Amino acid sequence: MGPGPGAMHPRVAAVLGTPLIGHLDPVMGALMDSTRELLKPLFGTRSSMTLTISATGGGGREAVLTNLIEPGDRVVVEVRGYFGGRLAECAKRLGADLRIVEGEWGAPPPIQGLVDAIESHRPAVVAVVHAETSTGAIVRPEELKSLADAAHGAGAVIAADCVTSVGSVPLRTDAWGLDAAFGCSQKGLACPPGLAPITLSDRALAKVRARRTPPPSVYFDLTLLEQYWGPSRVYHHTASSTLALALHTALEVIHEEGIEARWARLEKVAKRLVDGCAALGLPHLVARPHRMPMVTPVRLPEGLDEAPIRRALLLEDGIEIGAGLGPLAGKIWRIGLMGDSARDENVDALLTALERRLPRR
Amino acid sequence: MGPGPGAMHPRVAAVLGTPLIGHLDPVMGALMDSTRELLKPLFGTRSSMTLTISATGGGGREAVLTNLIEPGDRVVVEVRGYFGGRLAECAKRLGADLRIVEGEWGAPPPIQGLVDAIESHRPAVVAVVHAETSTGAIVRPEELKSLADAAHGAGAVIAADCVTSVGSVPLRTDAWGLDAAFGCSQKGLACPPGLAPITLSDRALAKVRARRTPPPSVYFDLTLLEQYWGPSRVYHHTASSTLALALHTALEVIHEEGIEARWARLEKVAKRLVDGCAALGLPHLVARPHRMPMVTPVRLPEGLDEAPIRRALLLEDGIEIGAGLGPLAGKIWRIGLMGDSARDENVDALLTALERRLPRR
Repeated sequence: MGPGPGAMHPRVAAVLGTPLIGHLDPVMGALMDSTRELLKPLFGTRSSMTLTISATGGGGREAVLTNLIEPGDRVVVEVRGYFGGRLAECAKRLGADLRIVEGEWGAPPPIQGLVDAIESHRPAVVAVVHAETSTGAIVRPEELKSLADAAHGAGAVIAADCVTSVGSVPLRTDAWGLDAAFGCSQKGLACPPGLAPITLSDRALAKVRARRTPPPSVYFDLTLLEQYWGPSRVYHHTASSTLALALHTALEVIHEEGIEARWARLEKVAKRLVDGCAALGLPHLVARPHRMPMVTPVRLPEGLDEAPIRRALLLEDGIEIGAGLGPLAGKIWRIGLMGDSARDENVDALLTALERRLPRR
Repeated sequence: MGPGPGAMHPRVAAVLGTPLIGHLDPVMGALMDSTRELLKPLFGTRSSMTLTISATGGGGREAVLTNLIEPGDRVVVEVRGYFGGRLAECAKRLGADLRIVEGEWGAPPPIQGLVDAIESHRPAVVAVVHAETSTGAIVRPEELKSLADAAHGAGAVIAADCVTSVGSVPLRTDAWGLDAAFGCSQKGLACPPGLAPITLSDRALAKVRARRTPPPSVYFDLTLLEQYWGPSRVYHHTASSTLALALHTALEVIHEEGIEARWARLEKVAKRLVDGCAALGLPHLVARPHRMPMVTPVRLPEGLDEAPIRRALLLEDGIEIGAGLGPLAGKIWRIGLMGDSARDENVDALLTALERRLPRR
């Protein structure tokens, strides 16, 4: 119940020991094609440039930015938490002419500030975090849409970190106008870490194809990966059939439940958690419209020595929760409801343990 | 029995379904520390900068080169096959002033040509492929040692692609003077793909620390990864406990058998394969001193329509072997003896199937 990984679904665990399949085996090709189709609705896209990167979510970020950003490109990045900071750091390393729009950790996204920055900086790329794992604050659909409109108005593409959102909350990249999104396998998808699903719009792909120089990375080169994921199956790297089969199984489980039913179930479990925490004197950090169900950041009582409690939860109760990061260290806990961990009985077990371990008020 | 992946060891398959552990869990930390110690003897190193990259072997290559090469650095790369070509492509993308020393695919490495190039080009980095998977030709220890001496004489560091060698044949980076080496999990280590073990010498690490600019990649940034693998466990990415546990188990299996015993066993199985193929009219491509046991490249009879035979082996006999690549396409097959696939009974099954499927001479 930390901010990721969540627990695997038991059916995912059951397929992991399947004998390896070669990365160029026709069975592997069929698995990849099917995975693409199962991923599209989770991203809310019809783009055929939807595939997985053989790396964790951070590799998905890098694949998207490394291909989209050329040295000297003007880039606008929003930073209100750790992962916004990572977007900025990646962009800087890629030689971007970077404009950072900062916001308070846990506060609503500075939409007007971002729109102003887009209009004045005239970027080629805008990058935002959909669901900021370090704070538990999410950007709302209409806000993402207005950022996408502003980006497109300036001739830019817009990329979103969806590592914590994909599979857990509505994500509609086509409808909202997001040109690139990247996720991970180990949070909302209830699969082990190791794969990063990504999707690119035609506009993003056109920018990649129009590069003056190839990206500095061969491993994350999307024009090469596109050929491996296409009918010609040109060798690029040894994709792991173990992880591919696990992700495919996880996606089957999700589609059997129904994507919308899954989102609704998660909202319900999260409400139980948020209400239970509030009753224990642990109020939510984030104002209601920007809360996300899969990470609940709770404010700790003034002066609480939180680390020993977190440690006892992990080592004695077998429950992992996350610490605060950066300016929120020592001030919040982050409780995750991800993948197969998002269950009423887990919430109840945590609340019972917290009640026992928190000092009496 | 292709040129990778090999089969997993059954004990590796058995641990894959273990519930996920968080990437910052103390149990994960202990697993990482132990993995490092188990990896060192396989690389033949005492360097504590030995760890795994959360990506496939290609990600290991990129981690090593992206950290070692700065834009404008002079680099000498040896190309006698597909993976030498990848080293060159990566170096080029990183802005290297590149000198490529070419050799014939499958021929012995052009050691003198490389030494001459090192002495004239005065590189900062030399990169070679230890065991070239695309041809089945290996560089011998004394040859690697002479290249390392030449590199050090020129003030360069030398990196070796050990993707196909680590775990299958002797590898002694410290004794040979190799400053960086990268491998993969799915060949000699009998584990699923998804992790790339790497090691760096103090000399290589000093070059990384002396960089004028940070590497373009955050995901592969070794100074950040070093902190995650060190006692402070600073978060860098969500390392997969599934793959970490699989690799640790695979390494335990290897150490129980004994590294030298494993190398010797592989040599014996490979002899059975090479002799059996020769008896079927499929001679080895590579002259004896540069053969490697884990990839046997066999010359095909003139005019053989090889693809249908390979396809029937895969789809009807359940045996995967590899095609020739580049100038060797249609001219050779590549038969792998990797990980748990390297068994007498597999060799015999393949030879029997080949005898049935090859046209009568």
